[in-house]
This record gives sequence, C-alpha cells and structure tokens, in this order.
Amino acid sequence: MLNIAIAGLGTVGAGVVRLLKQNAGTISSRAGKAIKIKAVSARNKGKKRDCDLTGIDWAEKPQALAEMEDVDVIVELIGGGEGPAKQLAEAALKNGKHLITANKALIAAHGIELAKLAEASKVQIAYEAAVAGGIPVIKALREGLSGNSLTSVRGILNGTCNYILTRMREGGLDFKTALAEAQKLGYAEADPTADVDGHDSANKLAILAALTFGSKPDLASIRLEGIRHITPLDLQFADQLECRIKLLGVAKLTPMGLEQHVAPALIPKKSPLAHVNGPLNAVLMRGDFVGDVMLEGQGAGAEPTASAVVADIIDLARGRTTPAFGVPTKDLKTLPTARGSTKMRYYMRLQLMDKPGVVADISTVIGSEGISIESLIQRGKPSSGAVPVVVTTHEADMSAMHRAFEKISQIKAVGLHPCLMQIEE
Amino acid sequence: MLNIAIAGLGTVGAGVVRLLKQNAGTISSRAGKAIKIKAVSARNKGKKRDCDLTGIDWAEKPQALAEMEDVDVIVELIGGGEGPAKQLAEAALKNGKHLITANKALIAAHGIELAKLAEASKVQIAYEAAVAGGIPVIKALREGLSGNSLTSVRGILNGTCNYILTRMREGGLDFKTALAEAQKLGYAEADPTADVDGHDSANKLAILAALTFGSKPDLASIRLEGIRHITPLDLQFADQLECRIKLLGVAKLTPMGLEQHVAPALIPKKSPLAHVNGPLNAVLMRGDFVGDVMLEGQGAGAEPTASAVVADIIDLARGRTTPAFGVPTKDLKTLPTARGSTKMRYYMRLQLMDKPGVVADISTVIGSEGISIESLIQRGKPSSGAVPVVVTTHEADMSAMHRAFEKISQIKAVGLHPCLMQIEE
Repeated sequence: MLNIAIAGLGTVGAGVVRLLKQNAGTISSRAGKAIKIKAVSARNKGKKRDCDLTGIDWAEKPQALAEMEDVDVIVELIGGGEGPAKQLAEAALKNGKHLITANKALIAAHGIELAKLAEASKVQIAYEAAVAGGIPVIKALREGLSGNSLTSVRGILNGTCNYILTRMREGGLDFKTALAEAQKLGYAEADPTADVDGHDSANKLAILAALTFGSKPDLASIRLEGIRHITPLDLQFADQLECRIKLLGVAKLTPMGLEQHVAPALIPKKSPLAHVNGPLNAVLMRGDFVGDVMLEGQGAGAEPTASAVVADIIDLARGRTTPAFGVPTKDLKTLPTARGSTKMRYYMRLQLMDKPGVVADISTVIGSEGISIESLIQRGKPSSGAVPVVVTTHEADMSAMHRAFEKISQIKAVGLHPCLMQIEE
Repeated sequence: MLNIAIAGLGTVGAGVVRLLKQNAGTISSRAGKAIKIKAVSARNKGKKRDCDLTGIDWAEKPQALAEMEDVDVIVELIGGGEGPAKQLAEAALKNGKHLITANKALIAAHGIELAKLAEASKVQIAYEAAVAGGIPVIKALREGLSGNSLTSVRGILNGTCNYILTRMREGGLDFKTALAEAQKLGYAEADPTADVDGHDSANKLAILAALTFGSKPDLASIRLEGIRHITPLDLQFADQLECRIKLLGVAKLTPMGLEQHVAPALIPKKSPLAHVNGPLNAVLMRGDFVGDVMLEGQGAGAEPTASAVVADIIDLARGRTTPAFGVPTKDLKTLPTARGSTKMRYYMRLQLMDKPGVVADISTVIGSEGISIESLIQRGKPSSGAVPVVVTTHEADMSAMHRAFEKISQIKAVGLHPCLMQIEE
C-alpha cells in the first residue's frame, strides 16, 4: 500500500482522484501495490467537485498533509512558484515524504533547492505533469535517452499559443479574434499574458534544458518573445515559404555555452514539429546516438495532466527512482549563457510605402551587417499605399540581424510593426 | 559498479561498446555507478569491429557469459527467436542475471516463458531496443502512460517499408526500384522478405499490444499483409484523397476482443502518423485519460538501437525495475481474437477495361454487401484500354468488404492486381 495526500483539488486534482478510482485495478497491478488517497486539502471544502472524496481525510491547511505520519507521498497541485506550494514542498521533503508536483514555476525557480532537500532526506521528486501534460517527456529525458549526450531540445510547449497560431493560419483570423475563440473554448485564460507572452513556455523550457544538459534550471537567461505581433499575413507568407509558424522553446549547446529562447519561429514543413497543430504540444530531443526523437500529445487539461501525475505515483510505488534532474545535484553543471552566438536564417516582414528606392535602402542595410538576402517576396498590389514584403536571409549572426532590423525599422518608408523571426533548421 | 556481458558484436553490439565508452562520464552519473563490460562473445573473434575491446574478456560461447559469477547483466544481441539467443536468455535468467535484449522475435515468441523465469529468479527483462530502435516506446507504455486504460496502439514499425513508400510517393518510383534504392542505402536487406511482407512489424506489434492491453503477446493472431502490391498510382490517389499510405501495425480492443493487423493503410494527412516519412518509425498510443500520444524517431540503426540498450542498462543500475510486460505474468490476460469485427472505411483501386456497365456492376456488388460508396475517382483517359478507378466506401464490415472485393476481382472487365486498403481514422 502506498499512501498519498493531495494538496489542491482543482481540475487536475479532481482528475487524479477520478483516475486512481476508475483504473484502480490495473494501477495496483502496475504499481505492485494498492494506491490509497489518505487525505486531501483545498481552499474550499464545500465546493462541488467532479470527484468522489468518500473515505478521504480532509486537512484545512496543506501543511498538515506534510505532517501526517502515515502519508508516504505528497502530491502538490496548488500551483505557483512561491507561497503555499513552495512551503508544502519543502515541508514534505524535510519530513521524509516523496514529492510529486505538476508545478512548472516551482521546479523552474526552486528545483535545485528542492532536489537538495530530497537528497538529504533520501526521498524523490517527480514532476512529469509540469511539462507538456500527459506526454512523458520528463521520463524520456531522465531515463529513456539517458545514454546519450544530448545537444538540443525544442518544444511547442504552450497549447494556447499553438491553438491561436493554428486558427490564425487555417481561418485567417487575426490574433485578437483567435485569442477570443481560444478563451471561449477554455484553451486560454481570461488574462492570457502567461501564455501568449511566453512565460509559461519559459518555465517549461528551463526544466527541459536542465534535464537535457545536466545543468541547473536557468530561467533568467531565456530570451523571451510572445506571439501578439504575429499577423495572418505572416502565416500566409510562411506557408509560401513551405513553413509553419510556432511558438518554440529552444535550448541548445553552442561553443559559447547554453542558448535558450522562447520565440515564434518559422519551422520548415519537413520538420515533424511543423505538423503539431491546435492545442497539442510536442518536444523534439536530439542526442548523439539516438538522433532526433519527438513526443507529441495533449499538453494540458485535467485528464492528460492526471495521467502524468499517476504515472509518477506508480513509479514511486514500484520503487523506480531517479535524481530530480537525472543526476545528483553535485553533478549538475552551471553553463555560461550564449546569446546571439548561433547563426540562423531569418524572416523579416515589412510594410513598405510604395516608394522607389526603399528596397535598395533595405538591401544596403542588410548587406552592411554582412548578411546576405536569400529571397524577397512581395505580396499583393500596393492598393492602400503599403505593400507587405518579406525578406529571408541566409545564416546570419543574431546580433547583426537585430541591428539590421532596428535600422530598417527606422527607415521612413517602412511602416509600423515590422516582424522578425528565426527560421528553424 | 554494474558488470555487464554482451553476446553478439554486430553493428548494434559494437555501438553499445562505443556508447558506453564515449559517454562514460554522464552515464555513470545518471546510473549512479560505473558500468563495466566484463566480457563479450561473438562468432568471429578475429573480425575487425568498430569498437575497442581492450580489457574486456572474450568468451568463445555466449552460454559461458551466463555462467560468469561477476556478471550482473547479460545483453543479448545475437538475434533470432530460437537457438543460441533463446538458450542464452534462459540460462541468464536461471542463473539470476538480468537480461537486456534487442530481440523482437524472442520477446514476441517467448516473452511470457522468459518473464516467468525472471520472476522466479527475481531479476529483470528489459527490451527497449526490440521495438522502434531508439524511441523509448516500451518505457512510455510500461511506465509513462501506466495510469491509463489503453485502448489502441498504432505504429509505423518498419523503416524499410516506410522509406520505400516515401520514395514511391516522392519520386514516383515503382516498388522494385524503391526497394533497390533502399538496399543500396542500407535500409533494406538483400532478402527483404521480413521487412516488406510485414513479419518484422508483426513481431513488434505483438510486443506493443501485450504492453498496451496487459495481455500475452499473440503473434499468431495478427493479420498480415505486405506492401509489394502497392503502386505509385495508389500513392497518387491517396494524395488526392488527402491521405498518405503507410504500412501500419494496429492493435485495438473491440467488443469482440483484440484486433491486430499489419497492413498498408491510408492515413489522413491530419493524423500525426501521416507525416512520419523516410526510414523513421512512430508509435501512436491512445489512453482513456491521456488521449493520443505519439513518439517518433529512428527505428533502426546501430546508434539509435545502442541508445535504447544503454538506457535499459542505466535503468538496471539505478534499480528502476518493471515486470517484463508491465504487470506480473499472473495478471496478464488472454484476450479473444476479434477478426473483421471493426467497421472501417475502405479504398479499392481497380484497373477497368473501358467497358460500359462495369462501374454499375461494381456498384451492385458493393451494394449487395450492404456497403455504401463514398466516392469514385477515375484518373486519366483510357488510352491503353484500362482506366484506373478508385472507390472509397463509408464504414463497412471487414468481412463484407473482403467478400465484395473478391467478387469484384472476378469481374471480367476488372484488370489484374486490384488493391484493397483500409482508411484509418
């Protein structure tokens, strides 16, 4: 018998309770023992929930769960990188209880401290649900590809953004309309900032990068760009260039160190990431022996997330254990930040006033930064006075490209809201 | 220190030796201990190999490895479902040594007996490399999705066939030319039977199905069809129908029992499986909580396969253990075979002699089996006297559809080599 306590009974918490009940037979067979929910805690005891809590103790404060003698595992589903979630996690580990969490912000910000506490108490931290919902990406990185020296990880880590970008392409919607649709369908929150500005993806990328490179999560070094400035026109141009636009989290090792960014990018249709549509998530890992491996599925939602939490519970029940970041904390590296050191191809979309000579001006700026143009596409006739033009470049230094883009943005005949994106390999 | 012995030093064996040496530092950190290759065995000691065997004992017979007192793990890379591989596996388990194998035929045919031996000796069997090379699909099914009740598994499990079908589509090649190309590139063997007739995929499907449903591998019940009869014309028609053709292994639970088949099928382009091209493999799993999860990557080759073997070694070193088929053998079910019980849409390609009335004859046959036609496409003009025609149907019983196909094949005005394929959902 493995005794667990769950803190937080939102949709995911209720999903975990349902799943443990619904599949109890196969779960205890796979776990080698029965899983028993001893106690739960949530803010509002009276609230109607989509799960049966009969026979389960109720704790007024989550902290109380960490002090129950007959509880082996604390499942933290409160959320948030600080406050009660962090306090509970620390208390649980100090009291010698295993910690399972779906909390990306907590692991990205405090994963190392927690991992050290776990090592001191000889207990485990598991957080499959923190990244990409039900897709077993943490397990793939910590265990499945553990023989490899991994060189990069790329992910479509936010279903809200992927849904919005998919709808903008398929339906020709603008950002605001697609966002409103996503909100109506429950794919986006009333305040979409964390999703559409990339913060959610950044937390997940920090965790993936740590597992990929055996390094400490380094959220602060992630270059961050959201998707608010993408237009349906960009999605059409991308299609013409045999690409899709995705909000992509990328972490890769370069000779200068670790390069991490979350930004919208053009992905060639021949890449498997290009075909991940709607609210789906995917993670593409690259290893020296395995080559490229991609995992795809539902990255959010009560049931997929509960699937990941319960997989972690079964691992603990079976005694399958792994250091929090794949290796003991003493072996984790601190990698220098590489910024702008990798050469990439670029996409630049401009609205040009129909002035003779402006294309020449732009070409001159680009050339003066040592960048060479690969293609120049003009779309439509200059009816309203402004013509959308896209320039793609051969491989260019990020810093040089950003300087060129700044200068070009200031040319008078270049309209407002120009857009610069990387073209992923 | 974990002491291993490797039997079989073909490309995969040599790859394992190379990988353990090349990434020794990170591997011992992830494994929690050093991995030492104590001994190896292969047919020809004098053969030049792409790995360094300095300091490793040589055994003339693989059986000798299973008797070495200081060996903890036997890595069986001999291959073949019977003979020396099976003898070694049995001896290893009986002598209390863990078994790691890349041998799909062995696990599909004798996995249950071996699992019972392992249980009796309290040791482990791991075989990540047996299915889909470096892609951690066994781990995903045994552990990552272990909370779910799984309802189906679908896979592109043979890189040779996928390469051939991709080249037939992209290059308009016929089967023989594409096969010759695959042989030249090392993607296909001189005798391609095991690959192109589906036997290789069937072994892998039997293993995946057992893990998916917690049942005994049942190779004999798999309906098997290869790809030799597919023509470039079929790939063009499929494209017109917004589909791709893939050799697909499918196992699903139906009210009548377990339905398993390996056969070429049309897959709608909106399915993630449709975009798995060239020699890549992919497995799509469906669970009651997680929904659809797909894993994609290199399904063969020395280095991806070595990646899987070494992941299994690290699991053992860390003490991460799982029953061979996810649950103890006593809990494994024997599922009845369901054949033809699922309703599917169908694609039927015919060469019609330009005879008035033949389309009406065909429609009559189809209608008489209670099947309704969804579309009828004719391609090109009847220049040579025969016109390729494709009929797609609404959902139909497999047995009814096969009866209709038989009858239609016997109509005089229907040319040789008609082709019937399922259209996957």
